[in-house]
Amino acid sequence: MDSDRGGDRGKVAITGFPLDSNSSFMKGAAEAPPLIRSAVFSDASNLWSESGINLGGELALQDAGDLAFASDIDEFAAIESAVEALLGCGLLPIALGGDHSITYPVIRAVSTRHSGLTVLDFDAHPDLYDEFQGSRRSHACPFARIMEEGLVRRLVQAGVRTLNDHQRRQAEKFGVEVIEMRAWNDSLPDLQSPLYISFDLDVLDPAFAPGVALREPGGLSVRQVLHAIQSLRAEVVAADIVEFNPRCDPAQITAWVCAKLVKEMAAKMLEGNRR
Amino acid sequence: MDSDRGGDRGKVAITGFPLDSNSSFMKGAAEAPPLIRSAVFSDASNLWSESGINLGGELALQDAGDLAFASDIDEFAAIESAVEALLGCGLLPIALGGDHSITYPVIRAVSTRHSGLTVLDFDAHPDLYDEFQGSRRSHACPFARIMEEGLVRRLVQAGVRTLNDHQRRQAEKFGVEVIEMRAWNDSLPDLQSPLYISFDLDVLDPAFAPGVALREPGGLSVRQVLHAIQSLRAEVVAADIVEFNPRCDPAQITAWVCAKLVKEMAAKMLEGNRR
Amino acid sequence: MDSDRGGDRGKVAITGFPLDSNSSFMKGAAEAPPLIRSAVFSDASNLWSESGINLGGELALQDAGDLAFASDIDEFAAIESAVEALLGCGLLPIALGGDHSITYPVIRAVSTRHSGLTVLDFDAHPDLYDEFQGSRRSHACPFARIMEEGLVRRLVQAGVRTLNDHQRRQAEKFGVEVIEMRAWNDSLPDLQSPLYISFDLDVLDPAFAPGVALREPGGLSVRQVLHAIQSLRAEVVAADIVEFNPRCDPAQITAWVCAKLVKEMAAKMLEGNRR
Amino acid sequence: MDSDRGGDRGKVAITGFPLDSNSSFMKGAAEAPPLIRSAVFSDASNLWSESGINLGGELALQDAGDLAFASDIDEFAAIESAVEALLGCGLLPIALGGDHSITYPVIRAVSTRHSGLTVLDFDAHPDLYDEFQGSRRSHACPFARIMEEGLVRRLVQAGVRTLNDHQRRQAEKFGVEVIEMRAWNDSLPDLQSPLYISFDLDVLDPAFAPGVALREPGGLSVRQVLHAIQSLRAEVVAADIVEFNPRCDPAQITAWVCAKLVKEMAAKMLEGNRR
Amino acid sequence: MDSDRGGDRGKVAITGFPLDSNSSFMKGAAEAPPLIRSAVFSDASNLWSESGINLGGELALQDAGDLAFASDIDEFAAIESAVEALLGCGLLPIALGGDHSITYPVIRAVSTRHSGLTVLDFDAHPDLYDEFQGSRRSHACPFARIMEEGLVRRLVQAGVRTLNDHQRRQAEKFGVEVIEMRAWNDSLPDLQSPLYISFDLDVLDPAFAPGVALREPGGLSVRQVLHAIQSLRAEVVAADIVEFNPRCDPAQITAWVCAKLVKEMAAKMLEGNRR
Amino acid sequence: MDSDRGGDRGKVAITGFPLDSNSSFMKGAAEAPPLIRSAVFSDASNLWSESGINLGGELALQDAGDLAFASDIDEFAAIESAVEALLGCGLLPIALGGDHSITYPVIRAVSTRHSGLTVLDFDAHPDLYDEFQGSRRSHACPFARIMEEGLVRRLVQAGVRTLNDHQRRQAEKFGVEVIEMRAWNDSLPDLQSPLYISFDLDVLDPAFAPGVALREPGGLSVRQVLHAIQSLRAEVVAADIVEFNPRCDPAQITAWVCAKLVKEMAAKMLEGNRR
Repeated sequence: MDSDRGGDRGKVAITGFPLDSNSSFMKGAAEAPPLIRSAVFSDASNLWSESGINLGGELALQDAGDLAFASDIDEFAAIESAVEALLGCGLLPIALGGDHSITYPVIRAVSTRHSGLTVLDFDAHPDLYDEFQGSRRSHACPFARIMEEGLVRRLVQAGVRTLNDHQRRQAEKFGVEVIEMRAWNDSLPDLQSPLYISFDLDVLDPAFAPGVALREPGGLSVRQVLHAIQSLRAEVVAADIVEFNPRCDPAQITAWVCAKLVKEMAAKMLEGNRR
Repeated sequence: MDSDRGGDRGKVAITGFPLDSNSSFMKGAAEAPPLIRSAVFSDASNLWSESGINLGGELALQDAGDLAFASDIDEFAAIESAVEALLGCGLLPIALGGDHSITYPVIRAVSTRHSGLTVLDFDAHPDLYDEFQGSRRSHACPFARIMEEGLVRRLVQAGVRTLNDHQRRQAEKFGVEVIEMRAWNDSLPDLQSPLYISFDLDVLDPAFAPGVALREPGGLSVRQVLHAIQSLRAEVVAADIVEFNPRCDPAQITAWVCAKLVKEMAAKMLEGNRR
Repeated sequence: MDSDRGGDRGKVAITGFPLDSNSSFMKGAAEAPPLIRSAVFSDASNLWSESGINLGGELALQDAGDLAFASDIDEFAAIESAVEALLGCGLLPIALGGDHSITYPVIRAVSTRHSGLTVLDFDAHPDLYDEFQGSRRSHACPFARIMEEGLVRRLVQAGVRTLNDHQRRQAEKFGVEVIEMRAWNDSLPDLQSPLYISFDLDVLDPAFAPGVALREPGGLSVRQVLHAIQSLRAEVVAADIVEFNPRCDPAQITAWVCAKLVKEMAAKMLEGNRR
Repeated sequence: MDSDRGGDRGKVAITGFPLDSNSSFMKGAAEAPPLIRSAVFSDASNLWSESGINLGGELALQDAGDLAFASDIDEFAAIESAVEALLGCGLLPIALGGDHSITYPVIRAVSTRHSGLTVLDFDAHPDLYDEFQGSRRSHACPFARIMEEGLVRRLVQAGVRTLNDHQRRQAEKFGVEVIEMRAWNDSLPDLQSPLYISFDLDVLDPAFAPGVALREPGGLSVRQVLHAIQSLRAEVVAADIVEFNPRCDPAQITAWVCAKLVKEMAAKMLEGNRR
Repeated sequence: MDSDRGGDRGKVAITGFPLDSNSSFMKGAAEAPPLIRSAVFSDASNLWSESGINLGGELALQDAGDLAFASDIDEFAAIESAVEALLGCGLLPIALGGDHSITYPVIRAVSTRHSGLTVLDFDAHPDLYDEFQGSRRSHACPFARIMEEGLVRRLVQAGVRTLNDHQRRQAEKFGVEVIEMRAWNDSLPDLQSPLYISFDLDVLDPAFAPGVALREPGGLSVRQVLHAIQSLRAEVVAADIVEFNPRCDPAQITAWVCAKLVKEMAAKMLEGNRR
Repeated sequence: MDSDRGGDRGKVAITGFPLDSNSSFMKGAAEAPPLIRSAVFSDASNLWSESGINLGGELALQDAGDLAFASDIDEFAAIESAVEALLGCGLLPIALGGDHSITYPVIRAVSTRHSGLTVLDFDAHPDLYDEFQGSRRSHACPFARIMEEGLVRRLVQAGVRTLNDHQRRQAEKFGVEVIEMRAWNDSLPDLQSPLYISFDLDVLDPAFAPGVALREPGGLSVRQVLHAIQSLRAEVVAADIVEFNPRCDPAQITAWVCAKLVKEMAAKMLEGNRR
């Protein structure tokens, strides 16, 4: 990542964390950031949000590049430092995964700067495993780490449809509010500022986002998700989009979904900051 | 099929009937059962239903294998016998097609054991042709056979969007209740026990289940179907999932839809049987 | 196009305009008409509309072939003449694109015969650019041309989700009624006769119609669109279906969506004409 | 087919016979002709053969459209008449299938005009079944019909790799010269004029032409086939290209292979006629 | 696996070992066996080898099913036992993977019955790692295990194109004969009986077999491989086909390649046994 | 591009020029560089060449990032400067396109440093148009520009199979040596140092590299190309790989082909420099 791309040229910064070594089932999520970036800035669309904000204008959306992981580094520490650097420049980060394991170090950095954080996690899975296949860093575990360390005030998970006993107990233990997919009614509870959005693509039905390693049919539509994001009233201070796996996407539609999410999230973040 | 896999090890049994010789348009549905089985038991998901039932536990879901058709056999008789054998072991069968022609022999077996059967058929097509392309065994005909023989008390078809004059007349003749897709409002009429669910994948919009030979856009979403199944109050005694054709599914998402259906159907069946 | 296929053999005529030279981003839409025709008349479905009209019957749907563009011709003039010829035979045309640039000459012809035309445009983009990449004939411009020339009384655009400042100003200047996707509530304003429907496939979410060059997630479902068309009360006198690009459709589902639209549009047109 | 497209505008005429009702395994070959035509005339390539003949020039390649089959017609008779009509105009036909069953009526017409015909059939299968699945018109049978009727002097089949006992006996009975794939050495026996080329796409390895219903790995490369055609010394008077099934071709490369074959075959035919 | 399918009904037995837990990069190879079986016995081809052996006849090819792994089992021990059982019935096994790790237990069983075994391994990679990513059971290690234990007399690897220093040293240490792809000249050294063939699909160029997790371009064609197998003079006593990953195969051609290999290997094995 | 990634850390540098605005037919080639980079450094393979050079070692292969084009820049000037900068650091560049138009500015820079350059262009098309669709910068024109300006001593094109009259005359005018595909015999003429390799992916048969916008069947295999590169005796001082279009590659195999080419080109370049 090239830190001098930051500075005062914009307010929202997208930055890629190409990490999939904590994925349990299939590699590939590390290849997502350049494809998302390419779709965001493609001539095939424009940079206006649906709410009428020009993300191509001054002080709007900038590209902070991808983090390159040196071979002997602690990837989580590197991610945390990179997010701290962006926040230190006054930028509002949207982290592009990589798998869901990156959310833990990203939130570590964000929670230091923004105390009392609420997290809204769109997800088919609660990702609350204490450990998974022998690893506590697995992409099945980030929210267990986040809750154990008390990094956030509140965690709301929307779209979940794979709870098992262990995860149900973990959710109860940590006081996680799980809105299961079977109970989804197109509205969210009231959420306080500062707000962090974690977006695991598998919350979407695989029809809309086939490019994920773990496909769980019966999910949300893109429009349902956009409506939920556009309806938020809290100030969104940071976000991530994770688990896009280009290898599972022969029709190549999922990068465009990610780009749409980037734009609507960025618009919401800028809107919040103009108040 | 290996009958000694049955017995008292579970309550719901999935069994494959790899038959597509009665398909009018394209072969391939016979290749579906192993792919569905593989997705049901995949490490990429777990065996808990959305309603919180552990299908991986004791007395839950078991695999009764696929029926191998000897070359000189009457396939329909073989299917009927296989289902009778499962019912005789006290198992609740979910038959995996194969094309929709298998539903006729499956229901022959189920109706012998459960009199006064109601059938809920999710389908883009009514499959009520008296004969099709010269065959009365075609996958376009199973419900004509079932109604002629008086095997069931009531037939309700949901999601239909291809009625022509002949099939409309057949529906009237047999008293079939057809809920056309254009009139779908996310609720079903009250249905009595014992209930049989026949699920033709083409009831889903091809966006959700591209892996079907006959694609009829404008169908249900996976979530609409899950909601309908989860809302049933009658006791479900048997079911089938048919017409998945792996050859039409380059992104390979349809097997996961079938697996989701297996899990939610099985949960509903077990729930009914615990009363 | 073979004019002697016309005459009194039917009322609705599908005709292909294989033109994509005005596409900004990617060629391929010119290859769509034969694939749509093939799906409309395929044995894999039938020719009955959901409202019970037999399009395979007398005086229903006929095929008026594809227009072949000579190398030294003005394509727009050729399209306009071809539509005039169909209208002159008393036929109700459904034009198959090709890209959205064809709508301008088609509407020129239709508006001559039907004064006071209302246009209902299903579209992710308003296509109101004054010029695009140096061309005023671009597929991003047809409605600017149509409004400038005062060809129609009213233009309603549904499903738009990519407005930028320029296009917002153009919409205001021309009095276009834009129903943005984020405000879609499954109903349309009251629309007067005579009505023209322009259907750009990208109004659909890419999950339902991946075969478009410019994918804009967050769109309508096929069922939402069918419901909108079936609910129209005005007399539909002509229509087009544009921007299907077969090269972006590895699972090959989009042609079936086009065929479904042809059937429901044709049924609505015939229904209107029987009054 | 529009006969007035013929006449003196060219020498080689491509004409489509969209027939797949004699296919045993899967429909779809009927959808091939418009896709092949579109690739032949695409801006993405040019109309020069590798041997330096401009097929876009005067008296070169023309498009004779597709035959439309009326519902009560004998398709074979219609094909035979259509080819007779082309030959009667002095044109050299390249027939685009459709499945391999079309070769029988095409050769009936060609053999009437050109006695002592030699046929070079590129094929993975000998297609010599006396009858297949109850039909003597099956795409597995055309060469049995052709040889029984004594329509040709000599039949050479190249690339075969699926001989069974029945077909081996048929080949012996009819004196067919079968060059099996395992014995292929990049040369053909000397072939006399007049020569007919029948090209079943499955002779190619599925890597080169995945768009076929019956994939038989271990076939020829495109270059091997082009070399064989370019090396022919006999006068080629007619040809066909059959069994391209667009439904089996998600990467959409097979139409381009067909277009290449059309160009090299046409060049060879024109070359022969300039002698 | 259903042992009573064995017995005297045939000589070559295909049996699936659906194991991919030792794959380093991506799961999915465990889903291969049913797809290969389906292609072998498909109506879309026949059961005759290119050399004229009818594998559908008496004493030819039989299906010994797939091994089901109990959850608390040592999978390698289970595979070894299963192969021993087949050999004990006088059958010649073709093992269908699963990933390449299965070759170690398969060869353990085969080497017990056939001393002095020569192994011919078709492979893009030498799979000679002492350990890989912490595991000595990895699919990157089987031949290190086999050579350490002295199970075979000679190991010849053909088609290798990814040697690194470690593997080069391992090959030297164990006396492995590596025929690198860049030196391939369509002939193999003389190989003694008894011979075992291990076939890793990645030896093929990904154009011919895209369905592998690790694609290494520049490989063999299917025909080159068939020629090599058909030219063997040693007696082949057992074989495996591994690393087919259906998830990487959107055009679905790789299963047909596996089926072709099964037929030609089986024919070679039967031929050897008739001497 | 981040120039401080350069320096003395390596000898060969890959750098991406994501430019496709000069493509005639379809955009998308600009998305190639990150996918190629990702495949080169993927864990799914290693960094050893087939000739035994460790590109992952010191002084071997480094990543010089992608050039970002400012909106008001002359892209060709920017590319030329970027290549000059790399050469100034003593690096041997492999430029990753983008379309073939980038070769002109790359060779401008390389020819300044290396006088008397020979260019070996692997290509299905000669790309010698004086202008194409109104542009002299088109990807169909780079070698016309290069030859007009006398930048190189000799241009050899291998694999060409689309010559038309205009291009044949251009080749004669500029003294280009064209080795047509129909005459390919697996050997190249003797080529002098310094040598530049331009590799247009469409020289490969589309079976091996489907991810190109313009598919021209009948091309080289990957192995034929690797053999040609490995057999070069001249010193290779720079190279490019162009026209990979990820949008045409649903099976996602083409990036791996590019990665293989990068490795073998880099090995050849390092080999040359060690002399």
